[in-house]
Amino acid sequence: MCQDGYAVVSSDGVGKFEVAFEALAGSAPGKLQPGTVAYIGTGGALPEGADAVVQIENTDTLPPGPDGKKRVRINKAARGPGDDVRAVGSDIRAGAVVLQAGGLVGAAEVGLLATVGATSVQVHQTPHMAVLSTGDEVVEPTTKTLGPGQIRDANRAMLLAAARGTGAQVTDLGIARDTVGQLEACLERAIQAKVDVLITTGGVSMGARDFVKLLLERHATVHFGKVKMKPGKPLTFAILDTPGSAGRPSRCMLVFGLPGNPVSSMVTFNLTVLPAIQRLAGWKEPGLRRVHARTSAAIRLDPERPEYHRVTLHWARPAGAPEGQVGGELVAVGTGGQISSRLLSMRSANALLELPAVEKTLPAGSVVSALLISDLSGMPVPETPASTISAS
Amino acid sequence: MCQDGYAVVSSDGVGKFEVAFEALAGSAPGKLQPGTVAYIGTGGALPEGADAVVQIENTDTLPPGPDGKKRVRINKAARGPGDDVRAVGSDIRAGAVVLQAGGLVGAAEVGLLATVGATSVQVHQTPHMAVLSTGDEVVEPTTKTLGPGQIRDANRAMLLAAARGTGAQVTDLGIARDTVGQLEACLERAIQAKVDVLITTGGVSMGARDFVKLLLERHATVHFGKVKMKPGKPLTFAILDTPGSAGRPSRCMLVFGLPGNPVSSMVTFNLTVLPAIQRLAGWKEPGLRRVHARTSAAIRLDPERPEYHRVTLHWARPAGAPEGQVGGELVAVGTGGQISSRLLSMRSANALLELPAVEKTLPAGSVVSALLISDLSGMPVPETPASTISAS
Repeated sequence: MCQDGYAVVSSDGVGKFEVAFEALAGSAPGKLQPGTVAYIGTGGALPEGADAVVQIENTDTLPPGPDGKKRVRINKAARGPGDDVRAVGSDIRAGAVVLQAGGLVGAAEVGLLATVGATSVQVHQTPHMAVLSTGDEVVEPTTKTLGPGQIRDANRAMLLAAARGTGAQVTDLGIARDTVGQLEACLERAIQAKVDVLITTGGVSMGARDFVKLLLERHATVHFGKVKMKPGKPLTFAILDTPGSAGRPSRCMLVFGLPGNPVSSMVTFNLTVLPAIQRLAGWKEPGLRRVHARTSAAIRLDPERPEYHRVTLHWARPAGAPEGQVGGELVAVGTGGQISSRLLSMRSANALLELPAVEKTLPAGSVVSALLISDLSGMPVPETPASTISAS
Repeated sequence: MCQDGYAVVSSDGVGKFEVAFEALAGSAPGKLQPGTVAYIGTGGALPEGADAVVQIENTDTLPPGPDGKKRVRINKAARGPGDDVRAVGSDIRAGAVVLQAGGLVGAAEVGLLATVGATSVQVHQTPHMAVLSTGDEVVEPTTKTLGPGQIRDANRAMLLAAARGTGAQVTDLGIARDTVGQLEACLERAIQAKVDVLITTGGVSMGARDFVKLLLERHATVHFGKVKMKPGKPLTFAILDTPGSAGRPSRCMLVFGLPGNPVSSMVTFNLTVLPAIQRLAGWKEPGLRRVHARTSAAIRLDPERPEYHRVTLHWARPAGAPEGQVGGELVAVGTGGQISSRLLSMRSANALLELPAVEKTLPAGSVVSALLISDLSGMPVPETPASTISAS
């Protein structure tokens, strides 16, 4: 493998040479005699007898000789044997492991697999996720005018989009009214559809009419039904085992009963559903990535519950650093009021600050941990200069 | 809107109260008399007469009174009017702008749109991208045994995956042999398919048989055909205008002639094709995000061409910082040999260091700019502690 140019005997140096033949990519190579050169295309195999390549920029084409043969002037000699030649195996050695199990197969990995001819590889099955909204007050987003106490169903479209974003197969179970009958029918549909993860929203608070909790207590094993966190206190998790029967293997469905408040449901989705999906999809290290960020404003902490505070992270020069210095410090900017129905606080949020339950106000400039909930590679970045490294 | 609990007249304080009625989510509220309370579910509307809510945790259910009416003990009084009540409009004010044009519509944004009943919004059309590999030496990845000089087509599968990752509609144009006829046929297929962006690989070096360059010079306007960068020197960009005719509007197709080396094609895809796709898809700020990172090893710079050096970024505590301090400094770890055919150097790379063309070796610990080419939220993170802010 080599660059476009002329295959040469490196000891021949500069001068005028006859172009003996063309060594083209995909064709078998010829044999080169000293004192002559061979045209060679990118990817062409080095002809026998040649030991280096001179790039085309370092040559000039000459008029053909009296015998009609092509001729070329080499202006800059090869530095020695092997110049501009890539040895077979310099990319990937025979027998080398090109990918480890448990990694994501992205574009570069697809290319690697194609290179080594691995056109069929074992991957984890795509998890199947279903989303169900519940509540008598919840109406379709298409509803023009809301009746008293009614709210449009933000959760379902949002969680369906988030679920699709994980690569999962997704089923929309609609809105169930607050009756045990409707909920049981939806649960049965999820079982029939062989759903791996069922997400419900609403119906998990402590109220007498919180039917999702009642349903799960009746049909599944509830592992927790209340979490000391803000938002997301009513978060409920259950596992429903479907016994096998003739022709139907036993299955297990994870059920996340997310709170009805849209922000609570989105935060708890990121903190609990996403890692579960990643685990089912075979990720070696599921879960949100933790970074550290400096706060840009004072934050009053909740004395009773640890809070997941929605912020937008930006890159910034560390405070006090000299003008020319650039560094990777992250600054957390709040996304507005944090009450749990305020979906505006999720807009453009790319991280959740992990704030402890302490009776105090956290001053601006504090460094706190943050969990990434969105792709930072698309986040806003203030104009920063590219590298200008002096030749000192 | 309020939490599960009892709607009260806040001045009534603690004590035993009759539960006058239930104010359920989705039903019209009743009217509350002082000295009584009303059960209220999450999302229920505050009854007339009530001015606060006491959460269910701060109450005890009592045996019914002699009249058979439900009774409850309030153990912790509301702090005053408005306690645990969310005013109408506290989430989104009437007339407020919830989203600006030019942003990505992610899950949270879908939820916001559903909340305000915006079930139909204008979005940019998905760009249509086609991928074509070229070269007599290039064979399908399914080829078991390679002939002399043959290589399996890594580029096409890789670029198709990368193109799909941008959300674009994708067409696979296969492999074209090094003949003008085959290339012209493929170009015509792309025009017929109304492709917005055509990506080719190979055939753009300086060689006499670099047919893609010849093809583009004949049929399109070549804007550049060589770039001073490493890898990616042969990168070629052209625009092909298809004149309108009866029943067919004029169209414009962007053509990126990427180099045939897999790493060169992947790097130039990220640096040039991706921002073009983002622009076509309506991104307000297309392009890779620039961060700054500290190098973990010495890097020998190329004296002639600026280099895009493939690295994996990790988070690390800044060097010299005390043990307890955590910060967002990024450390760049090389992904192995950087020669342009070595696809292993792309595996797990999430950034490209921007290295200037200078005759020097960059010492380990230098801070250089880096362009993000992958989602950092999935990148490896060393175990870092969550926030533990003392109550000082």
